[in-house]
Parts: sequence; C-alpha cells; structure tokens
Amino acid sequence: MAFTAVELIEIKRDKGTLSPEAIDWLIQSYTEGSVTDYQMSAMAMAIFLNGLDPGELAAWTSAMLHSGEVLDFSDIPLPKVDKHSTGGVGDKISIPLQPLVAACGVAVPMISGRGLGHTGGTLDKLETIPGFTTALDPQRFREVLVGHGLVLAGQSETLVPADRKLYALRDATATVPSIPLISSSIMSKKLAEGLDGLLLDVKTGSGAFKRDLETARELARTMVGIGTVNGVHTVALITRMDQPLGREVGNANEIRESIEVLNGGGPEDVVELTLAFGEVMLDLAGVGGGRERLLETIASGAALQKLVDVVVSQGGDPSVIHDPSLLATAPHEEMIEAGRDGYVVQCHAFIIGTAATRLGAGRERKEDVVDPGVGITVAAKLGEKVVRGQPLARVRFSDPDLWAAQREGLGKAWVIGDTAPEIEALIVERVEAP
Amino acid sequence: MAFTAVELIEIKRDKGTLSPEAIDWLIQSYTEGSVTDYQMSAMAMAIFLNGLDPGELAAWTSAMLHSGEVLDFSDIPLPKVDKHSTGGVGDKISIPLQPLVAACGVAVPMISGRGLGHTGGTLDKLETIPGFTTALDPQRFREVLVGHGLVLAGQSETLVPADRKLYALRDATATVPSIPLISSSIMSKKLAEGLDGLLLDVKTGSGAFKRDLETARELARTMVGIGTVNGVHTVALITRMDQPLGREVGNANEIRESIEVLNGGGPEDVVELTLAFGEVMLDLAGVGGGRERLLETIASGAALQKLVDVVVSQGGDPSVIHDPSLLATAPHEEMIEAGRDGYVVQCHAFIIGTAATRLGAGRERKEDVVDPGVGITVAAKLGEKVVRGQPLARVRFSDPDLWAAQREGLGKAWVIGDTAPEIEALIVERVEAP
Repeated sequence: MAFTAVELIEIKRDKGTLSPEAIDWLIQSYTEGSVTDYQMSAMAMAIFLNGLDPGELAAWTSAMLHSGEVLDFSDIPLPKVDKHSTGGVGDKISIPLQPLVAACGVAVPMISGRGLGHTGGTLDKLETIPGFTTALDPQRFREVLVGHGLVLAGQSETLVPADRKLYALRDATATVPSIPLISSSIMSKKLAEGLDGLLLDVKTGSGAFKRDLETARELARTMVGIGTVNGVHTVALITRMDQPLGREVGNANEIRESIEVLNGGGPEDVVELTLAFGEVMLDLAGVGGGRERLLETIASGAALQKLVDVVVSQGGDPSVIHDPSLLATAPHEEMIEAGRDGYVVQCHAFIIGTAATRLGAGRERKEDVVDPGVGITVAAKLGEKVVRGQPLARVRFSDPDLWAAQREGLGKAWVIGDTAPEIEALIVERVEAP
Repeated sequence: MAFTAVELIEIKRDKGTLSPEAIDWLIQSYTEGSVTDYQMSAMAMAIFLNGLDPGELAAWTSAMLHSGEVLDFSDIPLPKVDKHSTGGVGDKISIPLQPLVAACGVAVPMISGRGLGHTGGTLDKLETIPGFTTALDPQRFREVLVGHGLVLAGQSETLVPADRKLYALRDATATVPSIPLISSSIMSKKLAEGLDGLLLDVKTGSGAFKRDLETARELARTMVGIGTVNGVHTVALITRMDQPLGREVGNANEIRESIEVLNGGGPEDVVELTLAFGEVMLDLAGVGGGRERLLETIASGAALQKLVDVVVSQGGDPSVIHDPSLLATAPHEEMIEAGRDGYVVQCHAFIIGTAATRLGAGRERKEDVVDPGVGITVAAKLGEKVVRGQPLARVRFSDPDLWAAQREGLGKAWVIGDTAPEIEALIVERVEAP
C-alpha cells in the first residue's frame, strides 16, 4: 500500500480512523526513518488530542510490537508471567516479587526500564549490585531464563525499536501523558516478552504519573483490553501511591529493603503487595498453592536463593545479598524532623520522589547518571504518631549543595495534624476482561 | 524569561493561553534552531486543533514579523499599499493591478510567492519574462521602489525567516489549513513590507484553499483584525473562485492576458477585479480619482509603461511586453471538446488548476521546476452556450505522457446542461474593521 505521512496525519487531525495497513506503514516507516520525527510528533499530538479507537489501538500496539524482534519462549515448558508497574515512589516490588514467583515454578522474563522523573527504575536499583549487568543479548537472556526461570534485564536494541524512538520523541514534545500512547508503549514491550499472563500494577495518587482514579481506571482497562486481544491473560490492580511504598526510596536503599522482604521481614505495605501480586501471578500461571506457598517459599529461603542465583548468572556479586550493608551508601546524612507533636496526615510521595531524584537517586533527563548510595529513609509514614523533634526522614546524599537546595522542599512532604487520618486500602480495585 | 518548549506545548495542548513573552521566546528559539522542528510541529498541531485567541494571534504574528528584517519606507513620500490574494486558479490580478495603481501615484512594495498546489504564483509568472529577476537585495528593492513607485519581488532571506521555516514544516505535517497559522503567515509577511494600507483578496469556491464562504469570512476577519491591531488600514474582499479567473491558466499565458488588460482589453472578470481592487487601493492610499482615474491611466498607456519600466529595472526584456507572442509557448497543443450541445454549468477551477500544475505549469512540491510555456486556455466559461465538438479548452504542453495522464481528468472540469446557470457576483462581500 502506498501512503504518505501527511495524508495519515490529516486523517487523525480530522478525527478520522486510520486503517491497520496505514498504521503498520506509519510505524515501520518511522522506525526506518522515512517518516520524520517532525511528522511523527504532529501525529502524536493529533492522537493525544483526538485519541485512537480500540481497533486503531490494537493495530498501533501490534505495529510497535512487530517493529523489532518478538521473543518466543514457547519451547520453555513453564508458564511465562510478568508484572509491570506504571511507576511510583519507593516501588521496589518487582525485586522481591519476581524471584519469589520464579521460585514457585513460574518463568519470569522481566524486561525493565530506568528511572525517569520522580520515580526510580528497577534497572538502576539492580545495578547497585556490584558487577550485575542488565544488558543481555537475546541468547544470554534465554540462557538465564532457561537456567533459573527468571531473568532481570533491560530492553535490548532489537526489541520494540519503534517504542524507544517514539518515547524519546514524546518526552520532548509534551505527548507523554496520553492513554493510547502510554498503553501501546507499555503493552508492546510486554507483549514482545512472549508471555502467557501479565499483571499490571496501575498506580493512583500523588506519586503516580496518573493521579486521579478515573484516569487510572481508563489506563488499566485500555491495557487489559490490548493484552486480551493479543491472547495474553491480563489482570490489572489499581493500587494507591499517595505515600512512598515501604520506608526506603533510592537505589541501594530499595535493594536492602527488598532483601529484607525475601528474608521474611520488610515493611507491611511492601510485603502485602508482594504477596497479593504473587497470588495473582501464580493464578495467571495456573500454579497452585496461593499465598501459603508464597510464604513457605520465603520461609524456606528458596526465594532469596533464586535472587542470588540470578545475580550470579548476570555477573553480580552475591555477597551484597547476604550482607546488604556492603551496598553503596552516600557519605552525608541529615534528618528531617517533626516541627510539632501529632499524627502524620500527609507523607507526599511526589515531593519525596522528586527530592530523591534531585539529590541524585534518579534522572530528570535520560542522560543523567544515578548515584546508587543516595536515598531517603522514611521514618514516619501516614497515620504514625510523632513528637516534635522526632525524625520524619533520614537523608543520605553526596553533594551538600544539592541537599541545601532540597532541604526545605522535602520538609513540606510531611503534614502533621491533631488526629490520626483514616488509612485507605492499598489495593483499590481489580480490572480484568469480562 | 526562561521557558522550555515542552511546557509551552503543554499549555497549548491543554487549551491554555500562551503569554506574549512565551510566544516571542518560542518563535525566536525556533528561528535560531534551539527549538526543534519536531517540537514546533507538535505545537503547530496543538494550535491547529485548539486555536489561538486574538491576543495570542497578535503576539504570534508580531513575533514572526520581528524574526527578521522589517522594511521601513517611511522616508518615501508616497502612501504604501499592497494587495494579497489567498490564491486561485488563473489569478493574475496583481500583474495588471499593481502597475496600474503605481501609475496613479501609490507606492506598491509587492513581495510575492511561488505557486504551490493547484494555484500558480506571481513570481513564476513574472519570471517567464526573459531576464526578469525577482530576487532583489534590500537595497535594490528600495531603489526600484523609489525609482518607479513599484517593485515586484520575492521574499528575501532576511524577511520573516520564521515563516519560511514554519511554512515548510506545516506543509510536511498536515498543519497548513489552520486559520490562525495561515493568517499569521500571510500578515507577518505583509506587515514586514512597511505598508500604510493593505487589500486582501480572500477567495471562496472550488478553486480556493478555503472553499466554503463561512471559513473565508473567518479568515478575512482574522487577517483584517491583525492588520488593524498593527496600525495598517486593512480591507478584505471575499471573491468567488469557482471557475478560473479570465481565460488563461499557466505562467506565460497569464502574462499575455495581463498585458491585454493593461492595453485596455482582457476578459471581463479580470478587468472587473482589477478595477474594483484598484479603487480600494486608491482609497486606502488616500489618492483620489477612483475608477475613472484608473480607466484613464490604462487608456493613456501609463499603466503599461509602468510595467515596462519595472521590468527593465529588474533586468527583464521589455520587448515581450510590447509583443507578448515572444513569450514561451509549449510545443504541443490539444483540445478539450464539448460532448454535447448546451450551456456550461460547471467550469471547475480546482480540476483545471490541478491539471495545469501536473502538466508542468505549477509545483506539487517546492523543489519542482515550472515549465513557463505550459498552459490551459479556457474557451468556454460558466453560462456560455456551446455546441457538440466545440473547444472547451486549448491545452499547451511539453510532455505527451503528462498530457495522456491528465486528459480524461481535465475533461471532467466542464459540465454542460440544458439551461444557462445563474452567474453569481464575483465580489461576495467586503470585510473591514468596524
């Protein structure tokens, strides 16, 4: 078929419907470079403002997915299930969850991303383990997955190249927060993993990219729809992200907290989500045993051992798993202290995440380098009683100038009131295909 | 002020209002290259879909205008008035009109464009005069204007560079037909001419870029508003463009017909518009005499002599003005003939203009080269009685393959019916500031 970029942009500009052939041509031509960045950004803005209908969205996702290699693990005789989170502050759930689920007999081909904006990225966290590499070629990716039922990798150059190119463009053209564009970006990458089942953790609240519940619902429904159309059993859980998950924010900090969970400890909310997500993933995999099996797998040490095995396979030093105090720690420490007695009525995830990023734990631009030892330990979470002078957070940082710039803003993350607030359930609702 | 392209795109994407400072920064940064094409195309699409309010539009036009040199002819002791047409098929009115008005004592610093799409461009027509150059540096532009009260030039590199860059981008991103973007593009160029008065010819009908009357009205009002805010007395006439103007379409053809008008002849519709526009321009200039003076200036030969003088000043061979048969003529000639007896009820400007372009008289892409001798002579116009076999058009072309591809389509431009159609007035309405 012969199309031109201008005529396809015109169709979407005028609220028309793009045919699957037109969408295939567009994505392929953009990946190859014959459709230019400036044409694709005009199209992205037209999609942002005029949307994509379900048929267009399925075609768009499929075209992205087939812009590169699609992994095929059908020869691996285990159910393949992954989890994806839309991103939150202190969200390290993948790190305890994936080894735990893999240790129960599910194959988890996890391809993850780096931190951007106020949220951290799983790859950045894993790379605080000395020697650990997340850059695996397809053959090595398969070997680690076959060997351990788990692999923890970054996106290779050959996987969904259209998304890598389009994401960078959207970031520079104010076209990121579009439900069809977000959904197709996430789902094209997950569908390229060759999965049987997929759990989506869609965050809502001040620390989420989509703060309001209605938008989170729409995003969840849209992604579940794409997964279902593509034959992958997909479930979404909408979860609250008003305050950081757990008590640790920052790369090495979050690895430490994840190891606590695999050792049978860890903060209640992180444990709760890890187990709840684990149950759904076992269900999606058709593996029995539920929560009891997950708890046994932690108690027996098998889940922690799974992480150790994969760390060794991917070149990492396992001694930091056994002794997390060996992980990086930034040289300076300061406290944020309570200005009065009372109850924590706000512990603002976005503010804490942004401060951590600006202190060096995350990236404001893709080319920024992450400081592994920078982190914020949240000493007082929502509903906790505090007295004046008591630490609300312990902050570790490398650059005193950065700290000076963040100190005041970070302090505003906490609001202390006279009465304890009502704490809402962490899991808001479950979305799946009818 | 410190802005980022992303935050300004976000504002317009979300239907917000851009401040004048933000618009200045954006246009300047785009002209310099620090705002990229892909960011500007996302902004252009956001403007296409969400519009610009009158304040934004004034700021946008002013920022474009000041992206380069603004001409200042305040030292020339004549009123400065120009005419601009939104473009139509066979629209050669500028060529007889501007020398006529200049010969009446009005200074006309005409900066014109090239043909694109189904309409021809005044520059392409003028350049069929051997030796004639429309590329004048600012000093030479001023000298010709001072010497003759008339200059017929193309846009120099230094005039409104933002528009040159943005127009090419819009052309490739389906963001051309946007009233704020069209208006600011046209008006920034006209305001850069240092005018006292401006006549806008806004076309409506099958051969216009904006076919429906309501859109033409909106475009006319918007441009009159921009001119008025900038202190230039601006009048728009909305004129009908259902069939070609005059009988000639094509570059040398249209110069020949223009010379007929300056010799006191020419087709009725071309003469009518030339005189009507001339009257408005004399009014805008505060020069008396009206239609009678225009007719005298043609009859005395002064109008034709003005064209000869300017042609000589701009390096052209004046012998073609005295003997238009010396102008280029393409080697092949074919006829389109009436298939039945009756009255011409349709003589479709867009179809005729498109065929002329594809035969080589115009450009589908900016880099195309125009064939000066290609043209279509319209033998039967709306309302004329024809008999079967009588020529509807005489077509001159250079490439028989191109003719073979256009012949059938071109024939469809004419529809012959049993009764004479009602002919609507050429000038639909006048739009000016209250």
